[in-house]
Amino acid sequence: MYSLLLSLAAILIATKLLGELSRRLGQPSVIGELLAGIILGTSVLGIVDPHDPTTHAIGQLGLFVLLFQIGLHTDVRSLRRVGSSAIAVAFAGVLLPLLGGFAVARLLGAGNLAALIAGAALTATSMAISARVLADKGVQHTREGQVVLGAALADDVIGLILLSVIVAVVADERVGFGVVARISALSIGFIVLALAIGSYAVPPLFRAIDGIRAKGSLGMFGMAFGLLLAAIALQSGTSLIIGAFVAGVILHPTPQRQEIERTTVQIGHFFVPIFFAVIGASINVVALFSNQALGMGAALIVVGVLGKIAAGFAAWNFRGNKLLVGVAMVPRGEVGLIFAQMGLATGAISPELFGAIMLVVVVTTFVTPPLLNLVIARDESLDREHSQGPEVLAPDGRRVTTIGRRH
Amino acid sequence: MYSLLLSLAAILIATKLLGELSRRLGQPSVIGELLAGIILGTSVLGIVDPHDPTTHAIGQLGLFVLLFQIGLHTDVRSLRRVGSSAIAVAFAGVLLPLLGGFAVARLLGAGNLAALIAGAALTATSMAISARVLADKGVQHTREGQVVLGAALADDVIGLILLSVIVAVVADERVGFGVVARISALSIGFIVLALAIGSYAVPPLFRAIDGIRAKGSLGMFGMAFGLLLAAIALQSGTSLIIGAFVAGVILHPTPQRQEIERTTVQIGHFFVPIFFAVIGASINVVALFSNQALGMGAALIVVGVLGKIAAGFAAWNFRGNKLLVGVAMVPRGEVGLIFAQMGLATGAISPELFGAIMLVVVVTTFVTPPLLNLVIARDESLDREHSQGPEVLAPDGRRVTTIGRRH
Repeated sequence: MYSLLLSLAAILIATKLLGELSRRLGQPSVIGELLAGIILGTSVLGIVDPHDPTTHAIGQLGLFVLLFQIGLHTDVRSLRRVGSSAIAVAFAGVLLPLLGGFAVARLLGAGNLAALIAGAALTATSMAISARVLADKGVQHTREGQVVLGAALADDVIGLILLSVIVAVVADERVGFGVVARISALSIGFIVLALAIGSYAVPPLFRAIDGIRAKGSLGMFGMAFGLLLAAIALQSGTSLIIGAFVAGVILHPTPQRQEIERTTVQIGHFFVPIFFAVIGASINVVALFSNQALGMGAALIVVGVLGKIAAGFAAWNFRGNKLLVGVAMVPRGEVGLIFAQMGLATGAISPELFGAIMLVVVVTTFVTPPLLNLVIARDESLDREHSQGPEVLAPDGRRVTTIGRRH
Repeated sequence: MYSLLLSLAAILIATKLLGELSRRLGQPSVIGELLAGIILGTSVLGIVDPHDPTTHAIGQLGLFVLLFQIGLHTDVRSLRRVGSSAIAVAFAGVLLPLLGGFAVARLLGAGNLAALIAGAALTATSMAISARVLADKGVQHTREGQVVLGAALADDVIGLILLSVIVAVVADERVGFGVVARISALSIGFIVLALAIGSYAVPPLFRAIDGIRAKGSLGMFGMAFGLLLAAIALQSGTSLIIGAFVAGVILHPTPQRQEIERTTVQIGHFFVPIFFAVIGASINVVALFSNQALGMGAALIVVGVLGKIAAGFAAWNFRGNKLLVGVAMVPRGEVGLIFAQMGLATGAISPELFGAIMLVVVVTTFVTPPLLNLVIARDESLDREHSQGPEVLAPDGRRVTTIGRRH
C-alpha cells in the first residue's frame, strides 16, 4: 500500500505540474502527463512501476474514464449530416497510415506482427486532441470541423476494432480471415446492439434514477452504467474502450448527461493522468533515444502525417477545405498509445518500436497547431468563431447539433 | 479487468440504491453501503471478492479519502475551548468500552488477542455518524455538541494509535510495554510533527499552487498532499488513516480548503462506498446470524453503549447535559470496522466475532437517533438550532469556530 500511495501522490503532482507547463507552452496537457510518467517510471526515478497490477488497473480505469468522457461528448446522430464525407476520410485515414506504417516498419527490419502493430498504432486520430486543437483555433463548429470530428469518431471505432483483432492475433489464436471477421463482427455487433437497446432503455432508466436526490448519485449511476458496458464489451470479446465509449454515446442525448459529465470530469482529474503516466512510465528512455527508435519514429511520423493529410482529399464530394480536414486529422493519441502499450506488454514489439510510436504521438500533436495555423491563414472563406457552447450556437438554427461539441 | 469493472459497477449501483434507502429510513447511508457489500460479497452473490488485491487497494483508497475528508472538516484549534471536558470524555470513552469489551469477549470464550481487538473495536466513536446525527437534531453547535465532536476526534486519534499498536502485536512482533510505547510515541510524534511543520509550510505552498489555474489542479494537489502524508505515516510505522486525517487537519485553515474539499467529496462519491462495500463483502452471512455472533454482538452492544454513556459523566467540570454527551458518543463506525477487517484479514478474530463487531456498528448507529430524541426532549434548556453553516453562525460572534463543522 505504501508504494501505491507514494506513486499516486507522485503521479498527481508531476502530471499536474508538467501538464500545466505544456498547456502554457500551447501543447495539450497529455504531453506533460506522458513526460511526468517517463520521469517517474522505471528508467528514471523508479517511483511508478507500470507492471504493478494495482497501478496498472487504476491506469485502465483512467482509460475507461477517458473514453467514457469522449463518448459523452459525441453526438452520433449529427454524424449523418457529414456522414459520407467523414466515413470516406476515416477509411482512407485508417488504410493509408496502416499500410504505410506496416511497409516502413517491415523495410526497417521489424517482423510482420510488430509492423502490423506499428501500422495500426498510426490509424486512429486522437479525437480528444483534434477537438481541442480545433476549438483553440475557433473552427470546431465549421463543416470542416464536423467532418474531422466525425471522421475521428469513425476511425476511433475502426481503430478499436483493429485493436480487438490484433489482441486476438497476439494471443496466438489461429490467425486468419475467420478470426478477423469474427472479432470485427463482434465489435460492430456490440456497438450496434448496445446503441439500439441503449437508446430505448436508457433514457427512461435515467429518468427514474434522477428521482434519487442523494448527492452524487446520478453521476455515479452514469459511471456504473459505463463500467457495466465496458465489462460486457470486454467479456463478449471486444474491448473495454469500445464499451466505455458506447456507454458515453448512449448517455449523450439524455437530460442527465450534464450532471454525469460534471462528475466524470472530476473523477477524470484523478484517473486520466494516471493512465498517461503509466504509459509514460513504460517508456525506456535509453530505447527512446536510440538511433533505431529515432529512425523508425521519423519514418512513421512522415507516413502518419502524409497519410492523414492525403485522407482529407478522400472526401471527394465535400466542398470545403480538404487540406484543413487532413491536417486536423494528424494528431494521434490515446488509441495509438493503447496499441503501443499492448504491444510492449505482450512482447510483440521491441522497446525501440514502442519508443518510435511514442515519438509519433508527441510529434504529431506538436506539429498540428502550427500546420493548422498555416492552412487557416490561407483560407479566408472559413466561417471561424471563437465562441463556444449551445447558447451561442442556437440562434442561427443551423449549428445546434454539432459533433463532438464540448460544454 | 472484467471482474474489476463488473464489481465496481455492481458496488456503485448497490451502494447508491441501498444508501439512499437507509437515508430514507432515517439511517446513515453507511448502513446501506455495508448491506450492499454483504449482498455482493462472497457469501451471497459472489460478485465482489474482498481479497482481490486491486479491489482491496481501491477500498483502501476509499478509506484514505474518508479520513482525509474527516480531517478537512476538523478544526483542531477550537478543541481548546472544550479541551479538558472533551479529553476526559474521550479517555473514559476509550477505557470503559476497551476493558468492558475485552472482559465480555474473554468471558464468552475468545482468546486474549481476539478479545483485545473486540475491545479496541468499541473504543472509537464515529465522528462522521455522530456529527451527522447531531446536525440532524440541530444540536451540533451547542456546547454539548462541541464536547462530543472534540471527544470523538480525540478518541479517533487514540483509537488509531491503538490500531497501530495492535497491528504490531498481530504481526507477531515481541509484545510488551516496549512495542506499545514505541508505536504510541511514533503515532503521537507523527501527529505533532506533521501538524507543527504542516501549519507553517503548507499555507504558503498552497498559496503558490493556487496560482496554477488549470482546472481541477488545486483539488488534486490537495489529494496528492494527503496521499503523501498517508504514505509517510504508513512507512514510519503508524497508519494510513492517521496520515490522511492529519493531512486534512493541516489543510483545514487554508483558503484553498473549500475547493480541495469539493474535489475530495466528488472523488469520495466514487471511492468511499467501495471501502464500505469491501468490508460488507468480507462478512460471512452464516457467521453473522450464528448464535455465537448474535450472543457476542448483544454483549458487546451493551458494554459499548453503556461504556460511552458513562463516559459522558467523566466530564466532571462540564456544566451541560452530560447524558446527551454520552448518548451522542454511542455510534461506532469506520474505526471499529477497520479493526474488525484487520482482525479478520490476519486471522486474529473469527468470522463470528467479526459479525459481532458488525452488529455493534449497525445497532449503535440505529439506536442513537431515538435515544438522542429522548434526551433532547427532556432538556428544555438546550440551545438548539436547525440552521447550519458559517453565515448563520457568524452574527452572534460566539459560534464562529466550531469543531467538526461541515460546510
